[in-house]
Amino acid sequence: MAVHDTVSFLSDYGHDDEFVGVVHSVIRTIAPDARVIDLTHGIPAHDTRAGGLTLARAVQYVAPGIVLAVVDPGVGTSRRAIAVEVGGGAGIFVGPDNGLLAPGVAMAGGATRAVELLDDRFHLPAPGPTFAGRDVFAPVAAHLCTGVELDELGPAIDTASLLPGVLPVSRDEEGVVVAEVLWVDRFGNAQLNIGPDELVSRRATLRVGDVVRTATLAPTYGAVPTGGVGLVVDAYGLVSIALDQRSAAEELTLSPGSEVRLEPLGEGPAGHTTPLAFPTTRREA
Amino acid sequence: MAVHDTVSFLSDYGHDDEFVGVVHSVIRTIAPDARVIDLTHGIPAHDTRAGGLTLARAVQYVAPGIVLAVVDPGVGTSRRAIAVEVGGGAGIFVGPDNGLLAPGVAMAGGATRAVELLDDRFHLPAPGPTFAGRDVFAPVAAHLCTGVELDELGPAIDTASLLPGVLPVSRDEEGVVVAEVLWVDRFGNAQLNIGPDELVSRRATLRVGDVVRTATLAPTYGAVPTGGVGLVVDAYGLVSIALDQRSAAEELTLSPGSEVRLEPLGEGPAGHTTPLAFPTTRREA
Amino acid sequence: MAVHDTVSFLSDYGHDDEFVGVVHSVIRTIAPDARVIDLTHGIPAHDTRAGGLTLARAVQYVAPGIVLAVVDPGVGTSRRAIAVEVGGGAGIFVGPDNGLLAPGVAMAGGATRAVELLDDRFHLPAPGPTFAGRDVFAPVAAHLCTGVELDELGPAIDTASLLPGVLPVSRDEEGVVVAEVLWVDRFGNAQLNIGPDELVSRRATLRVGDVVRTATLAPTYGAVPTGGVGLVVDAYGLVSIALDQRSAAEELTLSPGSEVRLEPLGEGPAGHTTPLAFPTTRREA
Repeated sequence: MAVHDTVSFLSDYGHDDEFVGVVHSVIRTIAPDARVIDLTHGIPAHDTRAGGLTLARAVQYVAPGIVLAVVDPGVGTSRRAIAVEVGGGAGIFVGPDNGLLAPGVAMAGGATRAVELLDDRFHLPAPGPTFAGRDVFAPVAAHLCTGVELDELGPAIDTASLLPGVLPVSRDEEGVVVAEVLWVDRFGNAQLNIGPDELVSRRATLRVGDVVRTATLAPTYGAVPTGGVGLVVDAYGLVSIALDQRSAAEELTLSPGSEVRLEPLGEGPAGHTTPLAFPTTRREA
Repeated sequence: MAVHDTVSFLSDYGHDDEFVGVVHSVIRTIAPDARVIDLTHGIPAHDTRAGGLTLARAVQYVAPGIVLAVVDPGVGTSRRAIAVEVGGGAGIFVGPDNGLLAPGVAMAGGATRAVELLDDRFHLPAPGPTFAGRDVFAPVAAHLCTGVELDELGPAIDTASLLPGVLPVSRDEEGVVVAEVLWVDRFGNAQLNIGPDELVSRRATLRVGDVVRTATLAPTYGAVPTGGVGLVVDAYGLVSIALDQRSAAEELTLSPGSEVRLEPLGEGPAGHTTPLAFPTTRREA
Repeated sequence: MAVHDTVSFLSDYGHDDEFVGVVHSVIRTIAPDARVIDLTHGIPAHDTRAGGLTLARAVQYVAPGIVLAVVDPGVGTSRRAIAVEVGGGAGIFVGPDNGLLAPGVAMAGGATRAVELLDDRFHLPAPGPTFAGRDVFAPVAAHLCTGVELDELGPAIDTASLLPGVLPVSRDEEGVVVAEVLWVDRFGNAQLNIGPDELVSRRATLRVGDVVRTATLAPTYGAVPTGGVGLVVDAYGLVSIALDQRSAAEELTLSPGSEVRLEPLGEGPAGHTTPLAFPTTRREA
C-alpha cells in the first residue's frame, strides 16, 4: 500500500492562536517529509455542520493522502476519535466521530474501514484531554505518513456505526422550491442546497423572511445586473444567490440555515407563475 | 530553460473559506514537488488596485518562479486569462488580464511574452466558470512547474495589449505636495505615493479632509514622538504617515485613496513656509 | 553540528498584508530546502507579552531548528537584534531583544550562547530600518539553515544581558487566589497563571471586577454544565475559565491581564469557605 505524504488539514482553530502552528509542528516532528495543506481553519467555532459541508466541497480536489479534520466541541467526552479509510486505502480521514467527517467520506465514495484511535503509542502525552488535535489526531495523521497501518491505531469499528452527517434536503411546496442556505462565502454569495435542474424557469420570486425580490439566472457573477439578484450555478454545481460585486448575504440577510423560497416566474410578464412541478432532491452523507 | 518549483500565490480569497486550500490541493496534485508560498490572501474582495500594489511591493522579494495572482471580479466574463513571462523566463505571472498583474510585471522589468490561457488540456473540468483560480489559474501554474512551456498554454498575445495598472501620481500645487494613500498596513501606517526626495523640509503641515496636523520626518516608527505625527520612510522606500504604536489611519481617518496634502514647514518657527518647488513624480506600471 | 531545516515563525504581522509572505519568500530564496512552519501571526500588534507567552506554550512542540519571532515595536531603535542558542545547538531563537524570546528560551532550557546580529553580510539591503523581519531576521534564519554558524552572525553577547520576559505571578490573599488572565483563546477560554495544584477545592467563588460567579472544576470543556462556569485544566496544564460552547471571556468580560479572584468553596454548603493556605507560585522566564 502506498505510504501517504500529504495531510490536508481543516479545523475551527482560526489563525489568532498557535493551534494550527502547533499541529503543523507535531506533524513535522513525527513525519518530516509529509506536506501539510491547510484546507481552511476558518470554520466557525464548534460548527461541525459547516465543517462537514466544507469537507464535502473540498474533498474532490484534495491530494491523495490523509484528511485531518478537527471541529470538536465534545473533545474529552465520550465521542470517539476515529480514522476512516476511503477507496480501499486511497485516503484516510482522521478526526472526531461527531458527524464532521461524514459528508467528506461520502463524497469520497464511502468508508471501507474504520478504527477507533485508542492505541496511545501513536498519541502525545497530554496534560489534559482538551486539545485532541495536537495530542491525538495530528500524531496519528503523521504516523500514517510514516507507514503505520490503519489497524495499528486501534480496534476496528463497524463503519455503519459512524455518526452520519445530516445535509438539509430541499422540498417542493406546490411549485415553490423551499431551499436552505448551506454556506455564505467571503464574497457574500449564498450557496443553496439545490442544483440547477431544480430551477424550472430563468426567473423566480425569491422570498427570505419578509424580503421579496425577483431573481434571475445568470451565467457568472459578473453577469448579474447591477441592482438585480442573480441565481448563479457556482463552482460546486449548486445554485447560489449573488449580487454584482456586493454581498448578497448582507443585503438579503442570509446566513447558513436561512430558508429561501423560490417561486418560478414565467419568461413572459413578471408575476406570471409557470405551474410546473419541481423535482425534490435528497442529498445525504 | 529552468523548470520552476515555486508558486507565489496572492488572492482576495481570505481565510474563512476553503478557496486557498483547494488551490493548494490542485497544485499539490498536479505538481507534487512545487512549493506554494502564500504572499497574502487578505486583499479586499474584488480590489484589483490593492492587489496590484501588493504585488508591486512584494515582487522584488519573491522567489524565482511562478506568481499566481487572483483578484477577479470579472471571472467568467470576457476578461482574458493570461500568463505573462518576465525576464525572458525568470518568472511567469498567471492570472486575469484586468490590471492586477501589471504593477508586479512592471516591477519585474516588464513582459517579455504573454499567452492567453485557452488550451483546456491544462485546466480542470468545472461545473461553472466562477472559480477560475481553481479551474484555470492553479492548474496552469502547476503545469508550468512540471515543465509545460508557456507557448503550450494558449495563443501568444501582444504584450502591449495587456491591461495596464494605474498607479496614482502625486502632484505639486504651489509648493504643496498632494499625495494619495496607497496602502494602510496592519499597524495603521499609511503609505503615500511619494518618495523622501519629494519632502523638502523635515516638518510639514499635513491636511486630510478637515484634519490639520504638523508632521515630522522620523527615521523609525519608534522615533515618532508620543502624540506627534511622523513621516517615516517605510520598508519599500516610500513616505508613510505613522504614529508611535498607534494607528495613524484610525486617528487621522486615512484609507487607501485618501488625499493627503503636505505643506512644507521651515526648520525655523512653525508656520513659516519654505517656498521651494517640489518635483512631481510619475509612476506607472 | 546538525544543519537546521525548519524555521518556526511567529509574529504580529497578521494576514491582511504581505509581510508573512515576503518573509517566506526571503527564506525560500536563500534556503530553498528549509521548511517554514507558521506558529501564528495573530499576536496583537506590538504585544511582546502575548508573543512571549505564545512562544512559551508552543515551544515544547516545535520541530528542532530555528524559531523566528518578530513582535518588534522598537524596530530601528537601539533594541538589539539577536540570535539565542538553546540546548547547546538544538535550537536557535532569532528576533529582537525586547523580552519576546525570553519565555520560549526559558521553556527550552535557557540560553547557551547568544550573538548580536551585526554582520550585514547575512542581511538584505533595505531602504529603511522598519521591516527587520524581512531584512534582518528572515535572512539570518535562512542562512542558519544553509549552514552558517551562530558566531558568524555577529559578536557574542552575554546571555545574562538578554532582556528577560516577565510573567505575572499569582498570589495568596488570606486564602483567596489572586490570578491573572494570560490568554484568551479563539473559543473564549481564559487561561490563568495558576496550575491545578493551586486549587484547593472543587468549587470556588470567582470574582472579576463586579462579577461574582460560582466556578466548578470540570475535566473537559464539554463537562461544564450549561449555564455554569468551569475551571478546566487546559492543554498546557494551566487552569482556564470556560463555559460550555460559549465564550467565557465575553460573558465574564475577561481579557489578557484581567485579575481573577478565586475563593475556595467547601464541598458542603455553598458559601462555606475552607480556610486553607494556597501555595503561591513564581514563574519567570
